[in-house]
Amino acid sequence: MAFTLKILGSSSATPAFGRYPTSQLLQVEQDYFLIDCGEGTQFQLLKYQCKINRINHIVISHLHGDHFYGLVGLLATMNLNGRTEDLHLYGPPLLSDVITSQFRCSETWLIYTVHFHVLDPVQQVIYENDVMTVSTIPLNHGIPCTGFLFQEKTRKRRIKKEALPEYISPHQIKRLKEGKDLFDENGTLLYHNADLTLSPRKSLSYAYCSDTAYYEPILEQIHNVDLLYHEATFMNSEAERALKTHHSTTHDAAQIAKLANADKLLIGHFSARYKDLLPLLEEARSIFPNTQLATEGTTISLAD
Amino acid sequence: MAFTLKILGSSSATPAFGRYPTSQLLQVEQDYFLIDCGEGTQFQLLKYQCKINRINHIVISHLHGDHFYGLVGLLATMNLNGRTEDLHLYGPPLLSDVITSQFRCSETWLIYTVHFHVLDPVQQVIYENDVMTVSTIPLNHGIPCTGFLFQEKTRKRRIKKEALPEYISPHQIKRLKEGKDLFDENGTLLYHNADLTLSPRKSLSYAYCSDTAYYEPILEQIHNVDLLYHEATFMNSEAERALKTHHSTTHDAAQIAKLANADKLLIGHFSARYKDLLPLLEEARSIFPNTQLATEGTTISLAD
Repeated sequence: MAFTLKILGSSSATPAFGRYPTSQLLQVEQDYFLIDCGEGTQFQLLKYQCKINRINHIVISHLHGDHFYGLVGLLATMNLNGRTEDLHLYGPPLLSDVITSQFRCSETWLIYTVHFHVLDPVQQVIYENDVMTVSTIPLNHGIPCTGFLFQEKTRKRRIKKEALPEYISPHQIKRLKEGKDLFDENGTLLYHNADLTLSPRKSLSYAYCSDTAYYEPILEQIHNVDLLYHEATFMNSEAERALKTHHSTTHDAAQIAKLANADKLLIGHFSARYKDLLPLLEEARSIFPNTQLATEGTTISLAD
Repeated sequence: MAFTLKILGSSSATPAFGRYPTSQLLQVEQDYFLIDCGEGTQFQLLKYQCKINRINHIVISHLHGDHFYGLVGLLATMNLNGRTEDLHLYGPPLLSDVITSQFRCSETWLIYTVHFHVLDPVQQVIYENDVMTVSTIPLNHGIPCTGFLFQEKTRKRRIKKEALPEYISPHQIKRLKEGKDLFDENGTLLYHNADLTLSPRKSLSYAYCSDTAYYEPILEQIHNVDLLYHEATFMNSEAERALKTHHSTTHDAAQIAKLANADKLLIGHFSARYKDLLPLLEEARSIFPNTQLATEGTTISLAD
């Protein structure tokens, strides 16, 4: 199971100190999700040797420029690279228009298909396959804005190979993985499931919450998440400014992580006023110790 | 006299090998001209410590994305930096719409004034002050596209300080600088101008020609230019592709520089297929020896 997050941009509204606007790349098995796409995202993908044409989903949280100004350039580069695979783009209603109008004025015609999925600021499942779901997390940011919850589905029970009888069919293995006991043709119990299997590995989950003010209604949805990214634009001394601009402080992010019982917290979307980010990290850790800075190039693998 | 060019981006359609899409910053005295604004231009301005709010003119050659996708982000950053000075933006007719629609969808309202000047693909003076003019250079690129000629006006004659008489009025100095002789109240010749002045310093000029196929009609306008930037997207082995895509080869750029009797040639807008640019430089130099690569960070000062 691949479940790996790469941070491409950690800056808030304006770039600063080599920090790029928001973007992240999440791989879950065969799916590559680009989460937000601030200006310069394609440079960062190149820098970290991420294969651009592997991205099959792009999710855009909201239409502030630092979260989508890199999208049109990335789509154009995919085109120039000769992409033929379909791409799924999820974002607020106006996103499609604003991209289309830019392509029209530069007489650019895509040679691949973009399926545009409109996101409304309500909780909804926007993607599902055999192993995972992606849901939106309604946030509180002044304009329509959603986070995203990437959840592995409940996994199957693991086979105790050493306990298996010599002869066992693929059908019986399938039943065992589903938690069922094995019977013979006459309905007589052969094996208790618990004797031949182990409990499933914990299902993995990642919640992306940016941009948002401190907002407890998200807690129910992100409860027990393995990894929580929560914006922390400001230090606590700027709490008033955070409130006014619908952003969070380090304390806000850490408090949400604590109340959600998250396993790990990543903070990012740092204001350009901070050159040194360590004080932000320390503030968050004072409330939620297992916190890490989501700086450019940071890679976190949730899989075993 | 400050007349200084800084290269911010040298890549063609897609970024590659750390090279950014097209952008250049030209300072002529108090005026700062940003010439094209590909994605990531604001990162490059930060990297090279150029003061973003000093830019008072932005000229956009055409609406292919690698020449303007960085504009909306830069304008937004100027806004967030608290800019109050007016900005003059020159570009094709649709540019204003495409920028406005992006700001509208992100509910961004500029706190400074942008004066939008529509460029038609004909030769026209788009800016003039006491010391210089900026004219468009119609190019040949499939879609409407103009280069730009930045020309210092004919300078005044220089005073030979050591030859001046003891008593001389500001009015007489002004006449001398204008090339006139000095007479007394009765119309009697006092001094020949040539005895008290030196010829003016050569007026400086910079021509920016990108994007374009090989196009001799520009020669008359750029004749004797001090510095010529001419795109050289491809090596000569790709001449057919250059023709098809309305771009130039190294030989094309060098031939134009030679026929124009330019003093120096800068080549740029390199295809992502070239990691090593030295072969392109060598090809151009085989026709026009005084050629330089317009790579990121290159700075050329034309002033004495």
